[in-house]
Amino acid sequence: MRLALDAMGGDHAPGPIVTGAVKAAQSDAELRVVLVGDRALIEPHLAGADSVRDRLEVFHCTQVVGMDEAPVVALRKKPDNSISRCWQLLAERKVEAIVSAGNTGAMVAGGFRLRLFLKNVKRPGIAAMMPTLKGPCVLLDVGANVAPKPEHLYQYGVMGAIFAKHILQKPQPTIGLMNIGSEEAKGHDLAKDTHALFKASTLKDQFIGNIEGRDINKGVCDVVVTDGYVGNVVLKVCEGVFDFVMKMAGKELFATLQNEKHLAQLALQNLVKRYDYHEHGGAPLLGIDGIAIICHGSSGERAIESALAIAATYARAKLNALIVQELENSPHLPSGEE
Amino acid sequence: MRLALDAMGGDHAPGPIVTGAVKAAQSDAELRVVLVGDRALIEPHLAGADSVRDRLEVFHCTQVVGMDEAPVVALRKKPDNSISRCWQLLAERKVEAIVSAGNTGAMVAGGFRLRLFLKNVKRPGIAAMMPTLKGPCVLLDVGANVAPKPEHLYQYGVMGAIFAKHILQKPQPTIGLMNIGSEEAKGHDLAKDTHALFKASTLKDQFIGNIEGRDINKGVCDVVVTDGYVGNVVLKVCEGVFDFVMKMAGKELFATLQNEKHLAQLALQNLVKRYDYHEHGGAPLLGIDGIAIICHGSSGERAIESALAIAATYARAKLNALIVQELENSPHLPSGEE
Repeated sequence: MRLALDAMGGDHAPGPIVTGAVKAAQSDAELRVVLVGDRALIEPHLAGADSVRDRLEVFHCTQVVGMDEAPVVALRKKPDNSISRCWQLLAERKVEAIVSAGNTGAMVAGGFRLRLFLKNVKRPGIAAMMPTLKGPCVLLDVGANVAPKPEHLYQYGVMGAIFAKHILQKPQPTIGLMNIGSEEAKGHDLAKDTHALFKASTLKDQFIGNIEGRDINKGVCDVVVTDGYVGNVVLKVCEGVFDFVMKMAGKELFATLQNEKHLAQLALQNLVKRYDYHEHGGAPLLGIDGIAIICHGSSGERAIESALAIAATYARAKLNALIVQELENSPHLPSGEE
Repeated sequence: MRLALDAMGGDHAPGPIVTGAVKAAQSDAELRVVLVGDRALIEPHLAGADSVRDRLEVFHCTQVVGMDEAPVVALRKKPDNSISRCWQLLAERKVEAIVSAGNTGAMVAGGFRLRLFLKNVKRPGIAAMMPTLKGPCVLLDVGANVAPKPEHLYQYGVMGAIFAKHILQKPQPTIGLMNIGSEEAKGHDLAKDTHALFKASTLKDQFIGNIEGRDINKGVCDVVVTDGYVGNVVLKVCEGVFDFVMKMAGKELFATLQNEKHLAQLALQNLVKRYDYHEHGGAPLLGIDGIAIICHGSSGERAIESALAIAATYARAKLNALIVQELENSPHLPSGEE
């Protein structure tokens, strides 16, 4: 199992990124990681990795896309950047998966540019895992496709359901459409047309209809389908509210408790460890011919280690073959430009 | 100060709704409340309200729009419904403000139907108060206008800033545009065009540009502008995450603490009281010629009491005159259909 890791991507690159790869290789003996980036900056962080050094290669490149650079412009101006090099390795089948905590827009644009899409997929979408009272659910798209068509959202339902079934182990995953009310006629045209498409499809028995923002964390469905603009906002609002509530709860508990303040602090730290978005590793760009994992810009060692492990799990689950097959079997979608 | 209250609107109507009005009248001696709804159902809840009975009138009507009914159809089929009667009282200048915890869509549609808009306002928008680390901010629109044009969003900025200045006491309110990244070129066409409109306007010094979902609760700006679809999702996601984190924190603390579990419970209850969306009263539909407050469907006595007090505050602040004047002074907006 050979994966490529963008060693230059993320707020803390390359140190903790490279260390994350070392840790991942140590815990999975089948893993080979290609570290893509500036050799001179990467190698110092490989000192002490002797036991796995033969499974860590460096693919040298000279450029980096900055976290705040305009993606498409950056990819064009910097042909030797680490993200494009990762995509190139994937396109040439030299690796089974690529992982980056770098500029999300550039990571998506890199794949779109090569049109490295699975057969029948119109637009790949980023799938984020959201915690709920009933275990994780999948929210997609969270930022690859900000102005999708109904068919794109329908395909997100297909891909999300396959993901939920084979990765989250939900035997018959349910699908909800993010909207502003439960009635069919709610929302804008995109929501209404997508609703109709699901109702007329082979997924109709898994489709529970519209869900509202407050339903996600209740776990009312396994897959939440939405456009990349709304999904991205939702993902980040969750982050923001989580941070806010934890801060406020900490303050309130500190003011109220007497002798067990330290225990309360421990409890809250446990909660952060379990749910904090910075601790967990990466969202797959579903619909790509290969596996591409996009990590939070603030990813540290642990997040990268976890993302590489996740990439290996996805590769082993052979989700892509299932996606191609399922889309083949899908009802005829309204034709038209992609 | 005469206000109308939809006595039939909300999950718990009419009992706690009417009691909320009694409480509001008791704490504000200038308040007169017209209770709109079925007299036979309202009057029993006025027993014991003798001290304020002369300031509580009943406006009898026979129909109610259900919480899940399709708004426009319901308003047409039920001409004597309590929401339409409230709007009628406002249009006839018999009251200064109307308050409802009923069907939000019907409340909005009622005002749009009469086109009871302030001069120069193209589309009213619902403004919700969001808690942040730096005190409340205003998020709008949260559901009145799901497919707005850039001019509508610009006007939300104008109205939100006036609201933040005069109600939230922010001398020079800052305005942010909800988007999926900070760079100008981010997002869909609506976001990009709205960004350009703000940059070219007299609000340009107050406009801080794009903000992301995680920025709201940090308090990076006083007014967050977005379309009604995204705003509604954001509002409800905040509710959902808040509930989720409070549940998880409660569990974790209960498992970790030893002798001070009850104190922790108290602390969390305080937090809920302070931030729970069910406890607070109502979001104004800004841009209406008059005052219209939309309350959460689950509003109880306290939420209604607070919404009526808020309606009185808005009326006294004479925000509408300021909105008309500010829109008069605004730069020339691209013309076109509204």
